[in-house]
Amino acid sequence: MAGEPEMNESKSIRSLEIERFNSLRPEKITDIVAMEEPLEIRLAHTRPDGRRAQQSISITMRTPGNEEELAPGFLFSEGIVRASGDIVSVAPCGPPAANGLVNVVRVELSENIRVDLGRLERHFYTSSSCGVCGKASLDAVAVQGNYELENLSFSISARALGELPNSLKIEQSVFEKTGGLHASGLFDSTGKILATREDIGRHNALDKLIGQAFLRDQLPLSSYGILVSGRASFELMQKAMMAGCPMFAAVGAPSSLAVELAEEFGITLVGFLKRDQFNIYSRPDRIQ
Amino acid sequence: MAGEPEMNESKSIRSLEIERFNSLRPEKITDIVAMEEPLEIRLAHTRPDGRRAQQSISITMRTPGNEEELAPGFLFSEGIVRASGDIVSVAPCGPPAANGLVNVVRVELSENIRVDLGRLERHFYTSSSCGVCGKASLDAVAVQGNYELENLSFSISARALGELPNSLKIEQSVFEKTGGLHASGLFDSTGKILATREDIGRHNALDKLIGQAFLRDQLPLSSYGILVSGRASFELMQKAMMAGCPMFAAVGAPSSLAVELAEEFGITLVGFLKRDQFNIYSRPDRIQ
Repeated sequence: MAGEPEMNESKSIRSLEIERFNSLRPEKITDIVAMEEPLEIRLAHTRPDGRRAQQSISITMRTPGNEEELAPGFLFSEGIVRASGDIVSVAPCGPPAANGLVNVVRVELSENIRVDLGRLERHFYTSSSCGVCGKASLDAVAVQGNYELENLSFSISARALGELPNSLKIEQSVFEKTGGLHASGLFDSTGKILATREDIGRHNALDKLIGQAFLRDQLPLSSYGILVSGRASFELMQKAMMAGCPMFAAVGAPSSLAVELAEEFGITLVGFLKRDQFNIYSRPDRIQ
Repeated sequence: MAGEPEMNESKSIRSLEIERFNSLRPEKITDIVAMEEPLEIRLAHTRPDGRRAQQSISITMRTPGNEEELAPGFLFSEGIVRASGDIVSVAPCGPPAANGLVNVVRVELSENIRVDLGRLERHFYTSSSCGVCGKASLDAVAVQGNYELENLSFSISARALGELPNSLKIEQSVFEKTGGLHASGLFDSTGKILATREDIGRHNALDKLIGQAFLRDQLPLSSYGILVSGRASFELMQKAMMAGCPMFAAVGAPSSLAVELAEEFGITLVGFLKRDQFNIYSRPDRIQ
């Protein structure tokens, strides 16, 4: 699985002259921060009446780079597209802004794809049976889910799992410089990291990672695990579940609803992952 | 300024029996995770035609607790309400979900308040002059901004600033147990922390903090600073700016757009805050 990071550092970071207090003494230094810019996703699609239409469907604050993966990854996670053939093209749209960045990406869908844009507007976490609660959120995910995860036989050794955070750090190109980016990585059963994506937004980092696999027709991720540099939230687990991934490992803490989602759908959830110690919140049978 | 945390621990955490690998050996332990549940905010208001209406305006994944602060804080940050008198009541709404939690909060606005709900739906980060970019995002914030920050004379010593992360940790009731929560704190010019709020979502933690001050008519926060346990993003800076706060200190890294917002509006932005070392990205004159 190819997946070399393509993030352009000059777009992803900015250097600044700042003041640092060190042992209470001020000094002038050059610091580097992660870029944060809005990205608008526009969708060109066929309406129910057969006419072509273009519509702005999302604006997210993101780190520039890999927009051609972020947009499809987002659309896939939201259940708008299901296979790379659903998308004809993904391209920057319009003139660059004053800083030289193009902050609009246009996704053109196939003629024959009908999308349910109401899905993006409806309240995802409510159901008529239960109102608003975690259980309703899980039910809503179940309706959307593409893949069966319960019986996937992916497994990894505890030793290989423990090495992952360090491997992810080595792969992270921008984090080391700025300390400001979330990373997502895709790993195999030997603990090898096959792709890494970074972003100031944790959701975007995972959308980029899933997007690159989606564009290569590598979904479902049934033979892979996903590693994130931060915490495991409901929304990140939902993305992993949509992508058909049986294992989710987080360097940080999981939330209650992340654990419930993992239990409900048979995903192995690992938290507080360090070399010598980690917690397994569900399906420990996949770790040897 | 009173502001004792009122978070009910039994609603905010859940305990679980899990497996922990320690030095590659599995053991059974009891772990505690932070609760994550959806919260729907409903707004009862007077429509332009004079009729009363109720509308669902937001669903966020949050840690239960302090919903009566979270909802007003969110509405204030979004420019929907400006003073506590705009709100008649904030109350849980409807029957509890299966887990005993009420995940809907209803905010009733005064008869005479007319709200621009389109504001929540329109794309905040675009302007007709510039399209989609960071500069347009800053322009949009400038239009919304309530307070002038440039000339505020708030200041704090480098020593007192350095003590803040430790003080915040002591105040955090849930983080220590779960490692899974973001915290926001309000501090004065002596470095005393006056209020702390926690949430699984960084935006929610700050909305709760601003909401408690809003309900006490303590805005603008012109004599205070805001401290966050994580990173400084554009959206968090925007909330601080809306609340009229002249100093924003983050334990983590700032983004490029957070720095630009701080420079544009005269906010002192501190990042990577530790006892002996921190970076000042804008307006260092407020730190002695």
